[in-house]
Order: sequence, then C-alpha cells, then structure tokens
Amino acid sequence: MNKRYVWIMAGALLSLPLFAQNQKEYPGRAPMTHEMTEYWWPQPPIVTPGQAPVDPIPAPSDAIVLFDGKDLSKWENSKGGPAEWTVHDGVFTVKKGTGDIRTKQKFNDFQLHLEWCTPVGIEGESQLRGNSGVFLQGMYEVQILDNYQNETYVNGQTGSIYKQTPPLVNAMNKPGVWNTYDIIYTAPTFKKDGTYRTFPRVTILQNGVLLQNNTIIQGTTPYVGFPEVIQHGAGPIGLQDHGDASAPISFRNIWIREL
Amino acid sequence: MNKRYVWIMAGALLSLPLFAQNQKEYPGRAPMTHEMTEYWWPQPPIVTPGQAPVDPIPAPSDAIVLFDGKDLSKWENSKGGPAEWTVHDGVFTVKKGTGDIRTKQKFNDFQLHLEWCTPVGIEGESQLRGNSGVFLQGMYEVQILDNYQNETYVNGQTGSIYKQTPPLVNAMNKPGVWNTYDIIYTAPTFKKDGTYRTFPRVTILQNGVLLQNNTIIQGTTPYVGFPEVIQHGAGPIGLQDHGDASAPISFRNIWIREL
Amino acid sequence: MNKRYVWIMAGALLSLPLFAQNQKEYPGRAPMTHEMTEYWWPQPPIVTPGQAPVDPIPAPSDAIVLFDGKDLSKWENSKGGPAEWTVHDGVFTVKKGTGDIRTKQKFNDFQLHLEWCTPVGIEGESQLRGNSGVFLQGMYEVQILDNYQNETYVNGQTGSIYKQTPPLVNAMNKPGVWNTYDIIYTAPTFKKDGTYRTFPRVTILQNGVLLQNNTIIQGTTPYVGFPEVIQHGAGPIGLQDHGDASAPISFRNIWIREL
Amino acid sequence: MNKRYVWIMAGALLSLPLFAQNQKEYPGRAPMTHEMTEYWWPQPPIVTPGQAPVDPIPAPSDAIVLFDGKDLSKWENSKGGPAEWTVHDGVFTVKKGTGDIRTKQKFNDFQLHLEWCTPVGIEGESQLRGNSGVFLQGMYEVQILDNYQNETYVNGQTGSIYKQTPPLVNAMNKPGVWNTYDIIYTAPTFKKDGTYRTFPRVTILQNGVLLQNNTIIQGTTPYVGFPEVIQHGAGPIGLQDHGDASAPISFRNIWIREL
Repeated sequence: MNKRYVWIMAGALLSLPLFAQNQKEYPGRAPMTHEMTEYWWPQPPIVTPGQAPVDPIPAPSDAIVLFDGKDLSKWENSKGGPAEWTVHDGVFTVKKGTGDIRTKQKFNDFQLHLEWCTPVGIEGESQLRGNSGVFLQGMYEVQILDNYQNETYVNGQTGSIYKQTPPLVNAMNKPGVWNTYDIIYTAPTFKKDGTYRTFPRVTILQNGVLLQNNTIIQGTTPYVGFPEVIQHGAGPIGLQDHGDASAPISFRNIWIREL
Repeated sequence: MNKRYVWIMAGALLSLPLFAQNQKEYPGRAPMTHEMTEYWWPQPPIVTPGQAPVDPIPAPSDAIVLFDGKDLSKWENSKGGPAEWTVHDGVFTVKKGTGDIRTKQKFNDFQLHLEWCTPVGIEGESQLRGNSGVFLQGMYEVQILDNYQNETYVNGQTGSIYKQTPPLVNAMNKPGVWNTYDIIYTAPTFKKDGTYRTFPRVTILQNGVLLQNNTIIQGTTPYVGFPEVIQHGAGPIGLQDHGDASAPISFRNIWIREL
Repeated sequence: MNKRYVWIMAGALLSLPLFAQNQKEYPGRAPMTHEMTEYWWPQPPIVTPGQAPVDPIPAPSDAIVLFDGKDLSKWENSKGGPAEWTVHDGVFTVKKGTGDIRTKQKFNDFQLHLEWCTPVGIEGESQLRGNSGVFLQGMYEVQILDNYQNETYVNGQTGSIYKQTPPLVNAMNKPGVWNTYDIIYTAPTFKKDGTYRTFPRVTILQNGVLLQNNTIIQGTTPYVGFPEVIQHGAGPIGLQDHGDASAPISFRNIWIREL
Repeated sequence: MNKRYVWIMAGALLSLPLFAQNQKEYPGRAPMTHEMTEYWWPQPPIVTPGQAPVDPIPAPSDAIVLFDGKDLSKWENSKGGPAEWTVHDGVFTVKKGTGDIRTKQKFNDFQLHLEWCTPVGIEGESQLRGNSGVFLQGMYEVQILDNYQNETYVNGQTGSIYKQTPPLVNAMNKPGVWNTYDIIYTAPTFKKDGTYRTFPRVTILQNGVLLQNNTIIQGTTPYVGFPEVIQHGAGPIGLQDHGDASAPISFRNIWIREL
C-alpha cells in the first residue's frame, strides 16, 4: 500500500464582506460545500500513548490556572455572560445548547495545558462523536474529537488544525481515560494591510506524543470554505459546544503560561 | 474604502490517485470549479517601475546562460523533443500549439533572471491577454500575464504564485517594453511520507520591485482545485504555452545561478 | 531592577583545520578563553514545575526504547566498545572516567524522551555539580546540570543549547527527584559548500515546562570558542561523562520516536 | 584544496551595562580583541557582475527618494544636525571627520536601493580601502568596502552582515564603476524581555547578484565582541564615515519602499 501521505494545508479565504465583494465577480459561482475541504485518506498512524494520567498533572508555579476543579470564574460565554457548563467532581462538562465558552483573559504567545475526556459508552461516528475544540486566541481551532477507533476526515481529527493540517499521528486514549494537550502557540504579526507578516504557529503534544511541530496556521478554521486571514490582537482560549448530543466532553486541569 | 487586504493562500490537495480514493468517501461530492480559487479584490497597488531595460542586462560570470539570443539548444518540449518556439531578433516567442518548453538541465536552489515582453496591440482581457508562466522545478508556476491596465483575479496576476499568493504590487511595464524577473528559489525538502519537511520558498522582483519576499509555496498550482504536495527532486525551468491566441509572449536573456 | 534579558546567541566558528588556516592570518592572535562565551546575568526566572514523576512515564507504542531499565545494549562508548556506565535499580548512572556514551542507532528528526536525576547530597557549585549533557545527532549539546539553587552562566545551565542560547526558565526539580526532558529535534540540511542550508532546530520541555521553542542551533557547542558548522548526516544520541567527581547523574526511561 | 566553506555566524553579546555586570563574574577576564571575530578563509568565489549602471536606475513610483542628486535634505548627522557630506555632480561623497549620516525618516520593513562607487586610484588594503557601510534601522551594518582585488576577513567584506555572515560571493565592480545594492529587510519583533521574538532578516543583491538570502541577523555588528540584542523600533538608514583617508566612497540614487 502506498504509505505516502499527502496532507491538506488549506488556504486563506477572503473574509465575509470581501467574499460578497468577490462573489459579484462570478454571479453564478457555485457555493463551496463542506466536503470540498475534507480528506479521509490516508489516516495518520495509530499510536498507543503511554501517558494516561489518573490524576491531574499539577501546574507549574508561574502558570495562570484557568480551571482548578472548583468553578468557571475565569470563563464566560460568547456573549460575555457567565459560562454555564456543568462543574462536577473536579471537572466540567459541555452543557449542550449553552454555546462556546472562553477565558475572560486574553493571551498572546503561550504554553497551554489542558486535559479532556470522552465518556464511556459514547455513541455516534465520525464528527458526531465527542466533538469539541480549543480555539487559540479565539480564532484558530485545534480539534478535539473521540477518535478512538473512530475514523473521520483527517484534517478534522483530534489534533488537526481544523480543515487545515492533520496531526502526525492518532494518539488517543480510549473513552473514560483522560487525554492531555500541551500546546505551544506563537501569535501572528500583521502587515498594515491586515495580512500576516508572520504566520501563527503551533506545536501540540497529546498524551506526550507530538502531533504538530511548529506548524503554520494559515487562517481561520471554518466548516465551509477556506481559511480567512483576519487581523487580531490578543485573544482568549475558547472551548467549543459542538451542539450535538454525542459531545459531552469533560475538561479538567487547565493552565496557561504566557511566553 | 476598506483597504484591508486579505489574500488567498490556497492549500495542498491530495494528488490525483489519492483524490480518487478520497472521492469515494463522498460519492456525490460536487466538483470544484476554477472560480472557487479565484479572488478579484482587492487589487494590489499599481507601481510604475523605474526599470525598463532597452537592452538585455548581461549575465554574471558564474551564470548558466539558458538563452543567449541565438537558439533554444538548452530547451526541450514536454516530451523531450526539440523546443519549437520561434527564435528571432535575439528573442524567442511562444509558438501557439507547440506546448510548454523546459530546460534540459535540472536545478535545485537557484537565482533565475529572465526578461519577457508582451507585444504592442495585444487584445483580450483578464487571463486571455499575454498569458504564460515560469515553472520552478517544473512544478510551481509564477504567473506571467499582461496585467498592464488589465485586471484579473489577484492570485492569477503577474508575479503571483498561481492560485496561491498574489504579488505585493503590480509593477508591469506596458506592452512593447521588456520586463525583468529576478527569482530566488529555495527548493523544498520532504519527509519520508512525501509531505514537505520544509516548504519551497521564493523571492521575486519584477523590474527591480519586490513582488514576493521569501514566500512559502504551498504545493502545485493547478487551475482547478487545491495545491497538491508531490515529492520531487531537482527539476527544470519551464515556460508555458497557454494555448490561446492572445499570448505571443517573447523572452530573452535568461540565465540562472545555482545556489 | 532591569528585567530586560539580553541573551547570548553565540555563533559558528571555523572548524579546527580552518581555524589553523585562519590563525596564520594573525600570528599573534590572543587565544579565546572559555569565559569569553559565558554570561551570568540575568538569570532566567525560576519556575517550580508541577511534574515530578515517581515512576517512569511509559513509552508510546511506536517509540524505540533506548533504555528500559535492564541494560545498555542499545549504547556504546565513544570508541564503539561496550557502554560501561552502571546499571542498577532500573536506572543507569554515569561511571566517571569511562567516557561519553552514545546510541548505536543514528537518527535524523526525532522526539526524544529521557528522565534524569541528581543524587541527594550532591556537592560542588556552578558547573561542578551534576554536570552532564545530551548530544543531539552526536553534535549539539543540550546541557544537563543540577541547577537547583545553583547558579551558573546562563548559557550553560540546564536546558541551554550549551554556550549558545539559555533556557526560557529554570524548571529544575530538586536533587533526588526525577526530571523529564522532552526534546523535539529537526536536523539541519546543508549546502554543497558544507554550511547550513537550514539550521538545526530544537524544542525542549523540562518537567512539562517549555525551555526552548523551535530554537535555532547555530553550530557545535564547544567549551572554548565559537560554534562550528560541520557537515553531518544522521547521528546518535550521546550522553556526557563530564569527568568530575560531582556528576553521578542517573538516567532512566529513554525512548525516541523518529519523525 | 578543501573548498568547503565554513562561515562565521557570530552571536549576540550583552549590551554594555550588562557586560559590565557580567564582567564582575570574571574580574580578570581577558578582553575580547577584534581579531577574534575575523575570519579570512575561505574567500567567497569572485563573480564578475553583468550589471554596471552608467546612469542611475530610476526609482519606482511608490518609492521615497532619499537622494535625488541635489541635496542631503532627507539626511542628518548623528547628533541630529545637518548632514555635511559633499554633494557634487549628482552624487555625494563621504566627508572624512564629519561622522556618520542617517535619514531623518525612520523605517520598519523596507526595500532599499542605493548605488555606490569607489574612486579610481584608491589605495590601502583590507579594511583600509573604501570602507563604509549601510546601517539598517540604525542598528545592523551591511558592509561596503572596495573588495575589488582586495582581500579582507570574509565576514567584513562587501555584502557581509558585519562580523557575522559573509556574502555568498564577491560581486564587486572595479573602482570608478557604480555598484548597486538592493536590500530587502524584515525588522525583528521582540519579546517583553527585550530579546528577539523573530530575528531581523535581510536579502541583498549587489549588481543583480545574490549575496544574502533572507539571512538571519543575530544582533548588532560591533568591531570588538559579539552581537548585542537591543530592543528597538523603527529606525533610520545610516551611512558610515569610516574615518580613514582611504574611504572617499560616493553614493547616488538612493530610494526606499516601505513594505
């Protein structure tokens, strides 16, 4: 079998006002569909990670603890109101229909640690199985999904830059076992014209296994269409309420170090 | 008017055999159309270059001269046969229908100089006006087009990485005046799996004005669909026969320095 | 106090034969001294890490285990003979005077995990206190030192690219507690002339805290003089016998994943 | 003969106040000498450029013309007073003893064009022969020297990042013939602690021949000691009065485009 990987590195699209402007050039232009930016093959190798923490790994002394097991006081919903996800047993769980949450504090370059877990007995397949995500600076989604014995399009699996770059490997722990994410993020710089002067970049380890190595992020991470390049400054860490019944992901032990 | 530029940086698609493989996942997937990867707005600023060489700029002593005004002996057609474009008056001109030509010699990293000219009285608009292109390592097209008072989609104009990154500015000389290209190219390196370990990169000056500054090339440059990442080694310099009647582009004074 | 950091990023020196050649130009040139490339101030911030593993963290399923607690069969001394360091209690300890050891296998890009520990009751100060090091591709030393309440020159402390770039922080566990290193290494590529075409790069986490973020390695890491640029291919992982009485560093749980 | 090049890429030193601070650690530390950061071998290949402009190459329409042949009104001396170099015949010449000059305007990223010429009959050798330099953002010197049939240390020759990186080749025109410099500069960004977050980078063509290709600048460019990393913002273009009798370099046709 041809083991050669050819991964998608999707590109930057015009932002919506510009898209409308450009759309006029082709009045009958066929719309993009979500499938056009989804690729299923080849699947990254499956690696069984050694790291499967029973208890949270304590934060370093200079970290800002974003969730310590007690409350969501460092978080808000997408309208700036209280974060309504469910806190229980030292963790918190997505509360379907309450929407995404994000940190009140905004960040530039950072090292982020978080732990997440999909419940035993989860159903659904492909994207409809434990789907959530971490938004870096509120802009760029690193996918979270229950990819344990569950295939999906490779640029939508756990550890992908969503609809852009698949992870190097699939290093999932099985449902009921906690996963760790260690994310090192370098914010972009912008030219006067609003385009990237330097790309955002990210390194990701899941359960101690490298998924992304200083990977270029090419723009936003929409479901349909290409990445957009949108000028921004410091931004929050966001977590996604995917809105389907199969996504009761739990989180714990979230801390961040400003770099 | 919103002067904010949001440029396309299109992404890497699966190569054709893989595409077929992936296509099976979505039997009814709508095909991409060429318009989906074309963006018209905003147009790069127009700069009137100061450099408009009447005579060819002589080559440095360590350059490999690829065309010295006499013959196409350093070139071949895409089947390996003789290059059949028309040599006259110290220049050569695309001969419609004879296909692309390429150097017999292959290159890795290089500095390439070439000069090109669109005839006075050329007709057509957008892409149907003086369309050609330079292929780096036979893989990646830097667009050549008569963009003098002729708008087209910005990621298809002169100095764009075709269907990827527009040039910083439009620095065209008018028809009948020679343009220079100075292209500094760094070849990619590949992982074992055939994906880029380091991206190809290119710096381009047209008529002494910077169009691309160490820009990442994201893959091949197809008319329809996304860039592909295809593993390759050293490759030729190619020149495009666009095949339409409006493209009698002439070339002269082509030399290359291996880096 | 001025908190502004100004770090050393030392540079590439001529290799020894060239040095001799260059030396002739200045017959009376004063020799470099080791102090010239040592800087003490400002010291990186001290961070108390949360991670202090009692037991080894198991290796991922695709890792090559370089030490599993039993023997040094994957290692050799610098002459290609048997590695003579002391294996005991599931760990191995530097055996003074037997010299550096290195893996028999050679590597290109990799993710390396190793754990190391300095004994309780260790004496000495600055560099004479638990001094060892990890050599990447046998060429580039990442310093290992007991920097717990022990200052030294900042480009010689734990997690520095030795005599080049200091770590972002000091994240030491105290003597008797195991430290983890997670090292992501990208090998250089070379031009025909033997200089770097792309620099080697390294990301390092100690005890889960970021010390180096895709840092450029500028050449070799000598005690006296500047880094050299020496052309090389795949190389081993090396561990240093510093040769002083204060360096009975122990290691355990070493694994590597080829990238 | 071993043709392998091993170039110097010298490193960043502490700024002077810090140096004093660090000096205390080694009260008897031997001082650096200028020879320690000078390397003579191997000399870059000599390339005879094809470009030797009799007349100035006109500026693009969007350029800021810094010298148009008439006066130094865009320039000042290093104290902010009038630039006192000699304007004559559409060019200006270093006036020994009046000190460096710099633009009144400050720049970030830019493309700079300038032309310079050493007089026929110039005497002196090595650095004492037509020595000047261009300072990027007032911080980083690109060397200007009469290197036509005049060897010097390679990291001090024309087109070197002074005391850092030699040029790829020696592409000098002989005395009395104008040389062009086309310099593409990307300014650094800084971390809060004052170190580089991204390095400054520079591409240089002399007479149309590539000397530096997106080369990292490692810090300031002092005569004695290592590069320093000093936090700065926008800065002027500077030109050096080397202060020796052998340096009556002339300049003309200087323009800059902000990127």
